[in-house]
Amino acid sequence: MLTGATGFVGSHVLGSLVDAGHDVHAVARRSGPELAGVTWHEVDLLSGVEVLGEVRPEVLVHLAWYAEHGRFWDSLENVRWVEASLALLRAFVEAGGRRAVMVGTCAEYQWGGQQDLNEHDSPLRPSSLYGVCKDALRRVAAAQAAESAFELAWGRLFFLYGPGEDPARLVPSVIRALLDGEHAATSTGTQVRDFMHVEDVAMALVALAQSDVTGPVNIGSGSPASVADIVELIGAVTRRADLIDWGARPTPALEPSRIVADVGRLEREVGYRPAISLSDGIRSTVEWWRERLPAGR
Amino acid sequence: MLTGATGFVGSHVLGSLVDAGHDVHAVARRSGPELAGVTWHEVDLLSGVEVLGEVRPEVLVHLAWYAEHGRFWDSLENVRWVEASLALLRAFVEAGGRRAVMVGTCAEYQWGGQQDLNEHDSPLRPSSLYGVCKDALRRVAAAQAAESAFELAWGRLFFLYGPGEDPARLVPSVIRALLDGEHAATSTGTQVRDFMHVEDVAMALVALAQSDVTGPVNIGSGSPASVADIVELIGAVTRRADLIDWGARPTPALEPSRIVADVGRLEREVGYRPAISLSDGIRSTVEWWRERLPAGR
Repeated sequence: MLTGATGFVGSHVLGSLVDAGHDVHAVARRSGPELAGVTWHEVDLLSGVEVLGEVRPEVLVHLAWYAEHGRFWDSLENVRWVEASLALLRAFVEAGGRRAVMVGTCAEYQWGGQQDLNEHDSPLRPSSLYGVCKDALRRVAAAQAAESAFELAWGRLFFLYGPGEDPARLVPSVIRALLDGEHAATSTGTQVRDFMHVEDVAMALVALAQSDVTGPVNIGSGSPASVADIVELIGAVTRRADLIDWGARPTPALEPSRIVADVGRLEREVGYRPAISLSDGIRSTVEWWRERLPAGR
Repeated sequence: MLTGATGFVGSHVLGSLVDAGHDVHAVARRSGPELAGVTWHEVDLLSGVEVLGEVRPEVLVHLAWYAEHGRFWDSLENVRWVEASLALLRAFVEAGGRRAVMVGTCAEYQWGGQQDLNEHDSPLRPSSLYGVCKDALRRVAAAQAAESAFELAWGRLFFLYGPGEDPARLVPSVIRALLDGEHAATSTGTQVRDFMHVEDVAMALVALAQSDVTGPVNIGSGSPASVADIVELIGAVTRRADLIDWGARPTPALEPSRIVADVGRLEREVGYRPAISLSDGIRSTVEWWRERLPAGR
């Protein structure tokens, strides 16, 4: 069972699960595309989790959460999703589930250091309500798994980009502006992040679901790139670097200078190595947007 | 509004709230005694929290939780109470609530050290599902309070005793055995704890509710006593110390040697100083049980 199956990450995970030959029960408020091997369940998980008892899935991949751009960091919707996720997990266990994969965030970690963030040593000190809620959910779910007979893996996502991303977010907004021949105002972009193509994220989560690894696993590229790097790539691929207004936006005062994943656990224990380079990923993402813009741009 | 109003702690808090002249809406699955100023609401909070919207309380004191002796440490019921408590708090905020007092546990702290446990420095590393769930609930509730317009205080309870305690627990079981003229098997009782009389706990929680202090506050006596001390006191008060079989029970292998509260915050910021000494508390608790045993004992 996959929740959040029509979301940015979920739609790619669904494709990867189908590609891997799994029989998938996809949960979303509205059904997504018909695919061989996929049964859709139109369910608002904030209203009830009876679907778990009906389907009785062996493996649960739970991606559904509140993710509205610009609002999700501090929205009280995060608290509702803690409640719903605990109810979902409880129903999964009661229905005899064997393995649950839930997703967390690099925002569980304390930000501000210069080290790659790892699952063993890096301090957990979330500063957003989103991070606190994911962190708290993980704590409860892990303790619950220790008391019950199910496996819990916790995929900790870093920075994602790729086809299907909310148009208001950084990568799509710069791509769309440049494809439209409009100026794109950016910060100086010195902050370093771990960007991972959403298809890589999806394949990593499927690998995690298929493994027997438990506990937190960073889902990242392990390849540091500055925001300037990614914006420059978009300029190069679109051949409109001239439209980038560097420094026209201030860098937020509290923006951490570096947030990069140590992906040793993902590579060694899960056996997944990111496959899509940043330049390839940006190229295909630009193509995806180009196909969706009015002809002639 | 007081939840868990018929429980061991809740029944004493209810009395203290009434004594302090408050208009109390008491929530429990079954109504408790009729008291002036108290309106009972028969509600199972695991099934719904609509009562918050109906009453719209200014202050919430949330004590309800799963507390079955011998089972609560690792029961999955703890997870249900995280869900219910988050839903309750959300409904409280939506109904315009101003101040919430929730209760945590000394089991949120890492055990095993020799220092008094304090709210600022002592590491939080719960080792039971109960402790993990309380810890996670506090994290979410505190972050939620920071985003919303309500105050959150978190009373962290240590070891309680007094009238109304579950007969299977240490103090009542020794008292009842000795009053019945039966042998009481105990460990050597060297482990040191922070025992607080439940009426003191109740008055401290009411003081906390009436204050404007936010964040975690240890609710303890600050007076270390060994389990042997308390059992000896019971022997002295009942005059049946001869019935105590010291060492007839093994001390659990992983039992921490010392769990004592630093009560500086309670005393200085909340302004509450524990009023009932251990000897007075044990004496009145023995009397309470004596009145409830068949005549002639």
